[in-house]
Amino acid sequence: MTAPPPGPTLLVLDAEPLPRLGRLTGRARIEHVDASALAGRLPYADVLLVWDFPTDAVREAWPGDGPRPRWVHTASTGVDHLMCPELTASDTVVTNARGVFDRPVAEYVAGLVLSMAKDLPRTWDLQRVREWRPREVTRVGGTRACVVGSGPIGRAIARTLKTLGVTASVVGRVPRTGIHGPADLDRLIARADWVIAAAPLTERTYGMFDTRRFGMMQPSARFINVAHGALVDEEALVGALSKRWIAGAALDVLRREPLAPDSPLWQVPGLLLSPCMAGNTVGRSDELGRQFVELYDRWEAGKSLPNVVDKQRGYVPGY
Amino acid sequence: MTAPPPGPTLLVLDAEPLPRLGRLTGRARIEHVDASALAGRLPYADVLLVWDFPTDAVREAWPGDGPRPRWVHTASTGVDHLMCPELTASDTVVTNARGVFDRPVAEYVAGLVLSMAKDLPRTWDLQRVREWRPREVTRVGGTRACVVGSGPIGRAIARTLKTLGVTASVVGRVPRTGIHGPADLDRLIARADWVIAAAPLTERTYGMFDTRRFGMMQPSARFINVAHGALVDEEALVGALSKRWIAGAALDVLRREPLAPDSPLWQVPGLLLSPCMAGNTVGRSDELGRQFVELYDRWEAGKSLPNVVDKQRGYVPGY
Repeated sequence: MTAPPPGPTLLVLDAEPLPRLGRLTGRARIEHVDASALAGRLPYADVLLVWDFPTDAVREAWPGDGPRPRWVHTASTGVDHLMCPELTASDTVVTNARGVFDRPVAEYVAGLVLSMAKDLPRTWDLQRVREWRPREVTRVGGTRACVVGSGPIGRAIARTLKTLGVTASVVGRVPRTGIHGPADLDRLIARADWVIAAAPLTERTYGMFDTRRFGMMQPSARFINVAHGALVDEEALVGALSKRWIAGAALDVLRREPLAPDSPLWQVPGLLLSPCMAGNTVGRSDELGRQFVELYDRWEAGKSLPNVVDKQRGYVPGY
Repeated sequence: MTAPPPGPTLLVLDAEPLPRLGRLTGRARIEHVDASALAGRLPYADVLLVWDFPTDAVREAWPGDGPRPRWVHTASTGVDHLMCPELTASDTVVTNARGVFDRPVAEYVAGLVLSMAKDLPRTWDLQRVREWRPREVTRVGGTRACVVGSGPIGRAIARTLKTLGVTASVVGRVPRTGIHGPADLDRLIARADWVIAAAPLTERTYGMFDTRRFGMMQPSARFINVAHGALVDEEALVGALSKRWIAGAALDVLRREPLAPDSPLWQVPGLLLSPCMAGNTVGRSDELGRQFVELYDRWEAGKSLPNVVDKQRGYVPGY
C-alpha cells in the first residue's frame, strides 16, 4: 500500500476537457468526480473545482449532511447554477473565473453587431440559393449601444464597440464613474441601436427583458444576449420580433439548453441563435486552469482570494 | 423659349439613386444620360460625373471624335472601369471618391474576420437545420493580418483590425513609414492569419493572388477580397480551398458580376460570397454627392482638385 499523497483534497467536478493542474501534483489530492458521485464525496473535500459549469449538480448535492469544502471555484463567470440557500448561508468562499471571458465575449458581440449591420446572415442565405442581390448595409460607426451589466464582460463589450465608433453606454446596479445606474436604463434602451445583455442572473435581472422593455426599443434596434438565457422573456422577444417592434436579435444563451429540435425558436424571422459559443474559445481551458492554479497558490499560502463572489448578490461586486 | 441655364455642362452618367446636386442649380447645366446616349453627348460636356460606376460605358464611348470633358469624376474608388489609352493620353483630369468608402469597407472586413473567427456562417447553417452543436471559436486578438494595398481603404482596414487586437501589416507599391514594400509581401502573406486584398487594379496587381501565393499561406489562413475581382485567380482560389491550403475565403468582388446562377463558385466549401456590399452603405449616395459638389466648388473657382488619379498608375498616388 502506498501512502496517500499529501495536501488538501481537491474535488474536480466533471472535467471535460481536463484542466491543466500539473502544478498541483504533490500539493493536493486531486479527485475527479461526476455529478452522480458528488454528494458522496463532498464531505471529504477541502476544495471543489466546478469545471463543467452548465450543471446543477452542486446545487443539488450541497444541502446534504456532513462537512463541506471551505472553498468552491467555478470555471465560469456566472454562479447562478451552483448557488443554494445552504451554500449562501455557509462560510464557504465561492470564487469565479472573472477576467477570462471578457475579451472573447466582447469579440463575439462585435461579430454579431457587424454581422447584423452588414446583413451577413441574409447574404449567406442568398448564396445558398445562388442569388446575387446587392443591398444596402448600415454603418456601425455612429450608432448607439446600451450594454446592460457593468462587470468586466459588459465593460469589455463597451470598450470594443467604442473602438468601432459606437457610442456605448454601460448600465449597472449602482451608478459610478462611466457607469449608469438602473434609473437610466429605460431611457438608454429606448434610444439604442444595440441593446446588449451582459448582466449576472439575479432576482433583480431575472426576466428583465420583457414585453415592456422590448416595447420601448426602437424599431431599428437589435437585441443581443450573451449572458444568461433567463434574463430574457423569450415569448416576449418572439412577439416583439414578429410585430417588428425591433429589427432583430441574437441569443447565445437560452432558457433551456440544448434547445429542443422541435422548439419554435429555431425559425423565428430575425432571430439568430448560437449554442453558448461566445466564451468558448480555443485555449480557454488552459487559461481557466492557469487561473485556478494561481488562486490555489494564494489559498494554500493563506492569502486572500480575488474573484470572491458576493453570495447574496450572485456576482463579484466592486470595481 | 427660356434661356438655357448658365454655366458649364455637367453630364451625369446613369444616376441611380440620384445624387444630391441641388447646390449646383443655376451654376451648371446638369444633363443625365444613360450609357447608350453617352458617346453622342460627350463632345458637349465640360464635366462628366460617372455615378453608376460598375459600367464600361465611359471606356467604350471615350475614344470617339470631337472635344472631350476637361474633368471626369467617378463616384468610386477604382478607376479601372473607365480608363482607356485615349483618356490616359488626354489632358482630362480624373478624380475619384477617395475617402468615402474607407470606414465602411473597414467595418465590412472586420465583420468578415469576426464572422470567420467565430464560425458564424456554420452556426447559422446549423440553426437552419435545428441542430444545437457547441464548438470552439478562435480569438481575433493576437492574430496577424496582412493588408495588401496601402491606400486609404487598406490603411483603414489595418487601423480597424488593430483596434481589435490584430497585428496588421500593410503592403504598398513603395515602402514608407508604417507601410511595407513589395519585397516584404510574400514573407508577410506566409505568416498571416488574414490576408486582405485592398489594392487598386493595375497591371502589377492583376491576378496577383494566384496558385503560388495561395500555396505559401498558412493552412489556418483566411483570404478576403474587398477590392477588385480581377486581383484574384479564382480557379487558383477554389483549388487552394479544396486542397485545404487555406482555411477559408470571403469575396465581396468577383471577376464577373453578377455571378451567373450556374457558376460553381456559389457552392465552394469555405468560400463566402457577397455581391459588392462592403461600401454599399445607407447614406453613401448623399456623401458621394456632397464630395462631388465640394470638388465642383474648387473646379469652378479654378483651384486645384484633390483626389486626382495618376492615369498611368490607375489610382491616386501619394500619402
